Amino acid sequence: MKKIKERIYLAGLIIIGNEILSGRTEDKNIAYIANSLSKSGIRLNEVRVIADIEEEIILAINNFRDRFDYVFTTGGIGPTHDDITTQSIAKAFGVENVLNQDAYKILLDYYGDRKKINESRMRMAYAPEGSELIYNNISKAPGFKKENVFILAGVPKIMRSMFDAILPTLKKGRILNSIEINAKVPEGVIAPELTKIQEKYHEIEIGSYPYYENDSAGTILVLRSINKEALKNGEIEVLNLIKRFT
Amino acid sequence: MKKIKERIYLAGLIIIGNEILSGRTEDKNIAYIANSLSKSGIRLNEVRVIADIEEEIILAINNFRDRFDYVFTTGGIGPTHDDITTQSIAKAFGVENVLNQDAYKILLDYYGDRKKINESRMRMAYAPEGSELIYNNISKAPGFKKENVFILAGVPKIMRSMFDAILPTLKKGRILNSIEINAKVPEGVIAPELTKIQEKYHEIEIGSYPYYENDSAGTILVLRSINKEALKNGEIEVLNLIKRFT
Repeated sequence: MKKIKERIYLAGLIIIGNEILSGRTEDKNIAYIANSLSKSGIRLNEVRVIADIEEEIILAINNFRDRFDYVFTTGGIGPTHDDITTQSIAKAFGVENVLNQDAYKILLDYYGDRKKINESRMRMAYAPEGSELIYNNISKAPGFKKENVFILAGVPKIMRSMFDAILPTLKKGRILNSIEINAKVPEGVIAPELTKIQEKYHEIEIGSYPYYENDSAGTILVLRSINKEALKNGEIEVLNLIKRFT
Repeated sequence: MKKIKERIYLAGLIIIGNEILSGRTEDKNIAYIANSLSKSGIRLNEVRVIADIEEEIILAINNFRDRFDYVFTTGGIGPTHDDITTQSIAKAFGVENVLNQDAYKILLDYYGDRKKINESRMRMAYAPEGSELIYNNISKAPGFKKENVFILAGVPKIMRSMFDAILPTLKKGRILNSIEINAKVPEGVIAPELTKIQEKYHEIEIGSYPYYENDSAGTILVLRSINKEALKNGEIEVLNLIKRFT
């Protein structure tokens, strides 16, 4: 059988949000996007939370769009002065931030009359030249796709609606199979042998996460691999290891 | 009165954690650190969530330690093979990862006997050359401070214990005063006038965060400034603006 090198799809997430950095708002988008990508066969490689500052958005976008297959941004696409995501991303791409006719049509349909769309609302119809719309079911303001960059809302409910709409359209690799084992021993006890198992199974990524419960220490071991057989063998070895200490 | 230029203290946070990127674990550390810094007069400028990969840790550390007064890392300081934070940070600084005698003493006190400290546990006593200890009340493994980089645990309870211990020792600027106003109107309605208020008050940073509740749209407005008088004046103008639309 010919061995085909797996194509791995990488993603980066940029959270644009002073409110997260100031501690005012607890981010809910990282976990949702990380979990959804993981389950779909796309690997989230890095997340950045940055301020609503044009220069920082440009730097992060240009760094990420070169490194990853998909870049997602959340936040900063509303009508107010602090919503500077699309104009900053246009600059990152070196294109104009232009009136997107499809987005304008949505606003026009919603408000019924051009006069009801004030200059601030009108900003929500501007996107980097060459962008496609990302619809959502919650609010009227759309997100945008510019090449491999997906510009999403920051409000979790709206972000999810947009994200769920685009996820099926993305190319994906094989899903990383995952096994979770609750070892009721401190990780220091099993660590030396665990290292040996990790060294033996290159196809498996073993994560070790300590926890503390009622004054006793335990460890959650997470084994991940695209190779189900290797994963099964690794699991047996880890379970045998734990038995020796419990 | 002589005007003294405010010294602003900037911080960056690096979350080292495959478990966050895979969506397995929801991060709890960003919100805690962001909120604590904000209340203390230190500005959190950027957060990165990166994988447990040496090269990525080195890049992030060297980028952040040049840009910020304080860099905090969470995760990867336990005894297992996937705990590579201290050795990676040592490389970022171009120093050796050496046995820290104070950390070793803690382990020795706890386990009572050198023989009980296996090679994996011993790793927890290694830190970049020239590091100082950061104690915690929960587990025995300490964090470390290397110049302006604070190496903390990933388990939230332990991270908090370490963070709370170091926060009083840091130099801080003036605390950003903050006022929050719940405007029960969609942000698009008030956006044009809000922009004018923002343009008038350079000392205030106005954030606008839409929300959706029972099918009606509202906006939380957050005004932040070190200047209390400007903040009060800004608040009055914002409240007057909202009145006109409710």
